[in-house]
Amino acid sequence: MREFELLGRLIAENSRLPAGVTLPPGDDMAAIALAGGGELLVAADSAIEGRHAPRGCDPYLIGRKAVLRNLSDVAAMGNARPLATLACVTLPAGLDENRAWRLLCGLRETAERWGAPLVGGDTASYHAAGSALPIVASVTILALRRDPKRPLATRSAARAGDGVFVTGVIGGAWDPRTGLGRHLDFTPRLDVAHALCDTLGDRLGAMIDVSDGLGRDLGHIATASEVSIALELGRIPVPPGIAPIDALGHGEDYELAFTASGEVPAEIAGVTVTRIGTVAAGSSAVIVREGNRSFDAIRMGFEHDGASGGVAP
Amino acid sequence: MREFELLGRLIAENSRLPAGVTLPPGDDMAAIALAGGGELLVAADSAIEGRHAPRGCDPYLIGRKAVLRNLSDVAAMGNARPLATLACVTLPAGLDENRAWRLLCGLRETAERWGAPLVGGDTASYHAAGSALPIVASVTILALRRDPKRPLATRSAARAGDGVFVTGVIGGAWDPRTGLGRHLDFTPRLDVAHALCDTLGDRLGAMIDVSDGLGRDLGHIATASEVSIALELGRIPVPPGIAPIDALGHGEDYELAFTASGEVPAEIAGVTVTRIGTVAAGSSAVIVREGNRSFDAIRMGFEHDGASGGVAP
Repeated sequence: MREFELLGRLIAENSRLPAGVTLPPGDDMAAIALAGGGELLVAADSAIEGRHAPRGCDPYLIGRKAVLRNLSDVAAMGNARPLATLACVTLPAGLDENRAWRLLCGLRETAERWGAPLVGGDTASYHAAGSALPIVASVTILALRRDPKRPLATRSAARAGDGVFVTGVIGGAWDPRTGLGRHLDFTPRLDVAHALCDTLGDRLGAMIDVSDGLGRDLGHIATASEVSIALELGRIPVPPGIAPIDALGHGEDYELAFTASGEVPAEIAGVTVTRIGTVAAGSSAVIVREGNRSFDAIRMGFEHDGASGGVAP
Repeated sequence: MREFELLGRLIAENSRLPAGVTLPPGDDMAAIALAGGGELLVAADSAIEGRHAPRGCDPYLIGRKAVLRNLSDVAAMGNARPLATLACVTLPAGLDENRAWRLLCGLRETAERWGAPLVGGDTASYHAAGSALPIVASVTILALRRDPKRPLATRSAARAGDGVFVTGVIGGAWDPRTGLGRHLDFTPRLDVAHALCDTLGDRLGAMIDVSDGLGRDLGHIATASEVSIALELGRIPVPPGIAPIDALGHGEDYELAFTASGEVPAEIAGVTVTRIGTVAAGSSAVIVREGNRSFDAIRMGFEHDGASGGVAP
């Protein structure tokens, strides 16, 4: 079972979505038209103990990450601001009450801090003979357009000739030995997203948050925009000790990747912005040239297939 | 760890909710004011294999029930209609693809049938050494006021002197031996809720859906409305073979319990409506008189504490 294929099938079946759905599932958020003239943006994402955070960690980290992942999706829409969150938490039966409370505090405090107060949800406990079940926190986030007159930065807005950019550094966000790392406590790039909209205006093209791996996430843009992306491996901003070729597939970076025409500042809202490639004609490819050979990085990212049961990716 | 206590603590901490939250967490749905003048209603609820549906059942039933539970919350608000759903599903690693697809179909088809198309979500798989993990489907539902000029039927709208009513039959919704029963495929009472609003108008008071058990759910109304409820045990409409005293604590009925002043038809939208008691002065009590003795039924319902690991309740 491959999750992307399942989701793809589900989205294909959703062709009968009502007219009110102005941006169908398949982007970082879906959008629904409201009678009052506005538009509601929605997304949902989970954090699972042992998958997105180390087994036995402070559950606060799980709650916080579940909310942060969703805030990263809001950032990826560019012209969007968080409104509220809901959380369904599934707890192993008999979980220490203080640990349960830490989880809920991680959810509530993070949501409140980022202007998306927790307004609903559910807690349920579960049990399976002979095993310690993981904590699961599933969060839905609601958002609104920040400027009602401007478009959203969808995945389908890349145009041949645009530059391709990323914020921050890519790769090494998690330590495969310990499961720790930046992925557990990152700054969702809302400020950067808003500054990009304000600075670039109509020159901002497609945008996505880098969670599945830079290769795969740029592939989502290439596919949705029906373009190819020529990636310059040596330009990918990596942390010390990480090779660009590896960084392409790491995932869990929660930075923004976007396309834009014309000049883009090297720093926006205090975060470095690096040009890593160019949008070209073609379709659904992320071409990396390395010396004499070239390859398509579109399958290099992390897929949440979970066979290992370790920490993501 | 008791889930209600955890949620209660979380709600108490939420006193700093922004002014836009017009109905705070603690009712069947929360409400958020929208800039355009409207109001968005939101709720979230899960269905867990082995908890809300039998282990190893057709996963379609899990997906369907996850959506139906949320639709029942929309019904409980009276003047509300479903808008859209999102789902986070957590699947055991290596789950047969057809079973995963059945789950997604149960979610999608049920959501579409009831006018709340699935517009977003996430699938993630998880793994734990030596155990078969359950399927978890967590659904968020969005709704709007059906008639923008009329109020919602909140839990806090019961007034002394009102009658107390339930729809359908209460008790025996699940078979404790097999985990099967009505709870797996019920009709969310949206039509009844809307007809109640239209028929009773301002005479409709508080409303809740009966999921935790009639005693406990009426207790939620008594507490939120600062009243007591005098329940007539012999009037509770039970299916054959179920004693009213047992029905009080069964839960998973997904019928509506409500308060109203004046006459209420014995059938609404094709569903029987039965008067089972009266709202009185007092606070946070559901008083049942049985012969010479009386007791408070407020603690008789099902709490999703899950120590058994069996099918709920």
